[in-house]
Amino acid sequence: MDSDVESAEPQNKGALHGCCTARLPLRHRLVRVGLAETLCTYVMMVFGLGSVAQVVTGGGALGQYLSINLGFGLGVTMGVHVGGAISGAHMNAAVSLAMCVFGRLPWKMFPVYLLAQLLGSFLAAATVYAVYNDAIYDYSGGNLTVTGARATAGIFATYPAPYLSLHSGFIDQVLGTAMLLLCLTALSDQRNTPAVRGGEGLMAGLLVLLIGVSLGSNCGYPINPTRDLGPRVFTAVAGWGTEVAGSGWWWVPIVAPSLGGVMGAGLYKALVELHHPKLETHQSDRREQDEMDSLEKHKASYTDTCV
Amino acid sequence: MDSDVESAEPQNKGALHGCCTARLPLRHRLVRVGLAETLCTYVMMVFGLGSVAQVVTGGGALGQYLSINLGFGLGVTMGVHVGGAISGAHMNAAVSLAMCVFGRLPWKMFPVYLLAQLLGSFLAAATVYAVYNDAIYDYSGGNLTVTGARATAGIFATYPAPYLSLHSGFIDQVLGTAMLLLCLTALSDQRNTPAVRGGEGLMAGLLVLLIGVSLGSNCGYPINPTRDLGPRVFTAVAGWGTEVAGSGWWWVPIVAPSLGGVMGAGLYKALVELHHPKLETHQSDRREQDEMDSLEKHKASYTDTCV
Amino acid sequence: MDSDVESAEPQNKGALHGCCTARLPLRHRLVRVGLAETLCTYVMMVFGLGSVAQVVTGGGALGQYLSINLGFGLGVTMGVHVGGAISGAHMNAAVSLAMCVFGRLPWKMFPVYLLAQLLGSFLAAATVYAVYNDAIYDYSGGNLTVTGARATAGIFATYPAPYLSLHSGFIDQVLGTAMLLLCLTALSDQRNTPAVRGGEGLMAGLLVLLIGVSLGSNCGYPINPTRDLGPRVFTAVAGWGTEVAGSGWWWVPIVAPSLGGVMGAGLYKALVELHHPKLETHQSDRREQDEMDSLEKHKASYTDTCV
Amino acid sequence: MDSDVESAEPQNKGALHGCCTARLPLRHRLVRVGLAETLCTYVMMVFGLGSVAQVVTGGGALGQYLSINLGFGLGVTMGVHVGGAISGAHMNAAVSLAMCVFGRLPWKMFPVYLLAQLLGSFLAAATVYAVYNDAIYDYSGGNLTVTGARATAGIFATYPAPYLSLHSGFIDQVLGTAMLLLCLTALSDQRNTPAVRGGEGLMAGLLVLLIGVSLGSNCGYPINPTRDLGPRVFTAVAGWGTEVAGSGWWWVPIVAPSLGGVMGAGLYKALVELHHPKLETHQSDRREQDEMDSLEKHKASYTDTCV
Repeated sequence: MDSDVESAEPQNKGALHGCCTARLPLRHRLVRVGLAETLCTYVMMVFGLGSVAQVVTGGGALGQYLSINLGFGLGVTMGVHVGGAISGAHMNAAVSLAMCVFGRLPWKMFPVYLLAQLLGSFLAAATVYAVYNDAIYDYSGGNLTVTGARATAGIFATYPAPYLSLHSGFIDQVLGTAMLLLCLTALSDQRNTPAVRGGEGLMAGLLVLLIGVSLGSNCGYPINPTRDLGPRVFTAVAGWGTEVAGSGWWWVPIVAPSLGGVMGAGLYKALVELHHPKLETHQSDRREQDEMDSLEKHKASYTDTCV
Repeated sequence: MDSDVESAEPQNKGALHGCCTARLPLRHRLVRVGLAETLCTYVMMVFGLGSVAQVVTGGGALGQYLSINLGFGLGVTMGVHVGGAISGAHMNAAVSLAMCVFGRLPWKMFPVYLLAQLLGSFLAAATVYAVYNDAIYDYSGGNLTVTGARATAGIFATYPAPYLSLHSGFIDQVLGTAMLLLCLTALSDQRNTPAVRGGEGLMAGLLVLLIGVSLGSNCGYPINPTRDLGPRVFTAVAGWGTEVAGSGWWWVPIVAPSLGGVMGAGLYKALVELHHPKLETHQSDRREQDEMDSLEKHKASYTDTCV
Repeated sequence: MDSDVESAEPQNKGALHGCCTARLPLRHRLVRVGLAETLCTYVMMVFGLGSVAQVVTGGGALGQYLSINLGFGLGVTMGVHVGGAISGAHMNAAVSLAMCVFGRLPWKMFPVYLLAQLLGSFLAAATVYAVYNDAIYDYSGGNLTVTGARATAGIFATYPAPYLSLHSGFIDQVLGTAMLLLCLTALSDQRNTPAVRGGEGLMAGLLVLLIGVSLGSNCGYPINPTRDLGPRVFTAVAGWGTEVAGSGWWWVPIVAPSLGGVMGAGLYKALVELHHPKLETHQSDRREQDEMDSLEKHKASYTDTCV
Repeated sequence: MDSDVESAEPQNKGALHGCCTARLPLRHRLVRVGLAETLCTYVMMVFGLGSVAQVVTGGGALGQYLSINLGFGLGVTMGVHVGGAISGAHMNAAVSLAMCVFGRLPWKMFPVYLLAQLLGSFLAAATVYAVYNDAIYDYSGGNLTVTGARATAGIFATYPAPYLSLHSGFIDQVLGTAMLLLCLTALSDQRNTPAVRGGEGLMAGLLVLLIGVSLGSNCGYPINPTRDLGPRVFTAVAGWGTEVAGSGWWWVPIVAPSLGGVMGAGLYKALVELHHPKLETHQSDRREQDEMDSLEKHKASYTDTCV
């Protein structure tokens, strides 16, 4: 649920913004990135959680499971367009972590992303609660529960299917997030077949839709620690109580995606990226040289951007 | 339900049309923009209302709720291609208003857009009524009602769910339209991650589809004063009577979206656009200079276009 | 069901193919265009009719109404990629007719397109019959009927809903085809907001999907004389008998779309294209000049192509 | 289920990678291509099989037939982005075979592709089994069967509908794979209307979705020998037993697609590609010359790449 693809964005914009950004005072840069990451996470989460609320309280007449896949998928797409060139629009702590581990984001920026994502997710949960308040009351009879036929906690955080063991849920989340980061890394690999420029948001959104369609039924595909924790805390506060911990489930969507994301990105790097032939220095074609120049320039400006 | 994105369109075309347009006599320009805005609104609304008519009268066998989301979403996409480079294809008074408030459309053009959108919406309602006349008669037994099991007024204008308070409906429409304008403003921000050229219509359409999937169940996501008022007036005239006012609901889809649109666009500007680093004058890269030149040129030509 | 959009294709390719094509002997050109138009129509129709066969014989478990919209929509997309740069991939006599009327296709080419489209549609019906033969037999008990609970004639040609008067069906087909041609003309208007290059097929496909979602329930959206007539003749021959004439319905999907297509394209031209400002001769920007040069060149090469 | 489209990819990248690749030692090239083809096949198959598992074990509440079409379709899209510029991301032995037959892939590379695709498919089946183990146990009561109300073998390999004769199944697979290769060949024909650069993955994915929607109900559209055989062998080993041979069905999805793929690509070449006008040597337009240069260069570099 996110988009490392956007790590590709600064490439386009790098020349225009990156260098300028690098000249901004550190504090300004932190505020700028933090605000953008909060806003794009908020946008993605309002659309995502809103689609669950609509399907759950509508009882199937106003959307089915596919609507939720579309809600989170296209929500990611819009989030990418809201924050892409400024923060990279990770919207997902597992993405930010993988980018830190592989040197595409400085570790000191990690807490900024984490806080922004938690804040955005929490505020989105509150917004969806406010807008769907009447519908939730009507559907649940005012009885806010985590389990049972009229449970509504699942609108906000994820819960495992009854048949799922904790062990299997952990594997599910490792795999789901690994697939996410594997594909996002590929989509932004300029030496493979990257997404078309300006279409990175759509591709990231279709990827999240795909994960929901293929790897969603065991536990609702959180694949994102902050997407899950923020709204879970909100429900604990807003009236669902401590049951929202889900009998010891709550930590799985935090730990497993963090692990899986690094594994997925690493797998792509080990099997594909590592084997790209070395670029040679004497190139006959001017265009190639230009392309590489811009790749180099990008790398520099991007590192600057994110101090 | 529209596309401020198209405010980006004149950029591409600005050089080709904008300047020429500016040389046209004012009256010709008003007619040109008014006709294009009427036609694109008409196209969007025929597809949108047609999809509701098909789902309602088909009883689920010829499309479900998702079909309506597709009808309005892709209807917006087509509308953008019909009117994009001429009027910006707002198709929505909340979009036109937000553009006036933030200086991207001169206030004196506002009445032209408003009239064109109302006219296009009204004519589309009449067209859908004509084409689905037999189906509506067959479905309702010739009894045109606003409420009840065989109500058909909802094909044309929006009505709140039974559980929804007026207060909650107002909030719903402020949020829905704020999300619309927030994302449209982002999609056309050339210094962030804008939609790919020629793909703005598709992105605007996916955004409207997304709002229908995520924020549609409370009151049918009007998010557009003219989309709602034109067809509501038509139903009042065409045989549904004064009940179409919806027990005092009718003004909500007019006032709340107008307010929400300005708030959403403003939020994006405050949290993201305002923090873009200042462009510097001495730039080493020729391409950057060109890009900025074209941005400047656009700004000029666009203002001209819309006198 | 088609793509006048492709009239835009030769623009890209015009420089590369058009002039060369013009030097080909007339007979070679007729064969080349005829083969491409037959093949792309065949491809579109196999996918379209196949999706109806799958939904009808699958009883809902293997696709619903939306699957048919996807089948015809994406079928058009693939057809455009199969024949686009050679014949324009009309795949629809109403499109070819409108292009002749508005001078974008020489009248002497019209019979070639008509025959190619009829042949492609007939062969596609035969193919789908062969592949779904077991399924149709299993579903209908071997009783090939046009009406009744297990009717299967609707897999191939279109039939009106029971409630629909002939008069209303005629209006439905005029409107549906008018919307098709109106939007296709807009999508290929290089002075408005045309589809992104290489994405014309996708946009034409989404347009046909949209018409199916919004204007499909009255009589199955033929909006295409050849799409309907070819398979109808096939069913008459293959065992469904003379009942496939549909109590005098058969001529409506032939006459009404032909009329509607010209009206829709004409409406766009009257309200939008006619009001484009005149291009001026002294232009400061080199790029503009280039763009116009290429527009001019295209116009020439396109006319040549289709002599 | 694949993408010959990617044969187009090396064109973009040819200049950057191709020549460098050609200088790599043969063994390095084999490893590089083999790893990429294995990984992209694995990604496509995890998403594809995962979507079937979700729909089957979810009993319709967590996705319907369309979800499976999306799972395989978008799975192909992601596979193309994972392996596109390195191996061409065939992910399908019928594609590799057709490319060998028509000289776009050296025969000596065929075993590498075959092994990589079988390995990727087998590992994906094992992965989906591991992740959906609890769900399959819960759904089937631990009784792994090939037929019956709670059969689960269909999650992994394809089986014909009860009504389908072997003969009809063979025709179905010839046609389905012919349509696949026909359209893929068109999508990568640079002298027709190819997919937009960077959008080849999406178009290949939509094509596979389309085949699932239109030609999927007879026997589950394998259209890919390796997609079917790998998981079938896995189920034989994992507990479903020798019944997975499907009463003599197992060889149809191997032989028929191999035959159909060559026929489909050949049909496009015979009816369209063969009739492209000959390129002329004296061209006035500089751009044309450039374009052709790049076409030539590609052809050379591509052949090198895949030695």
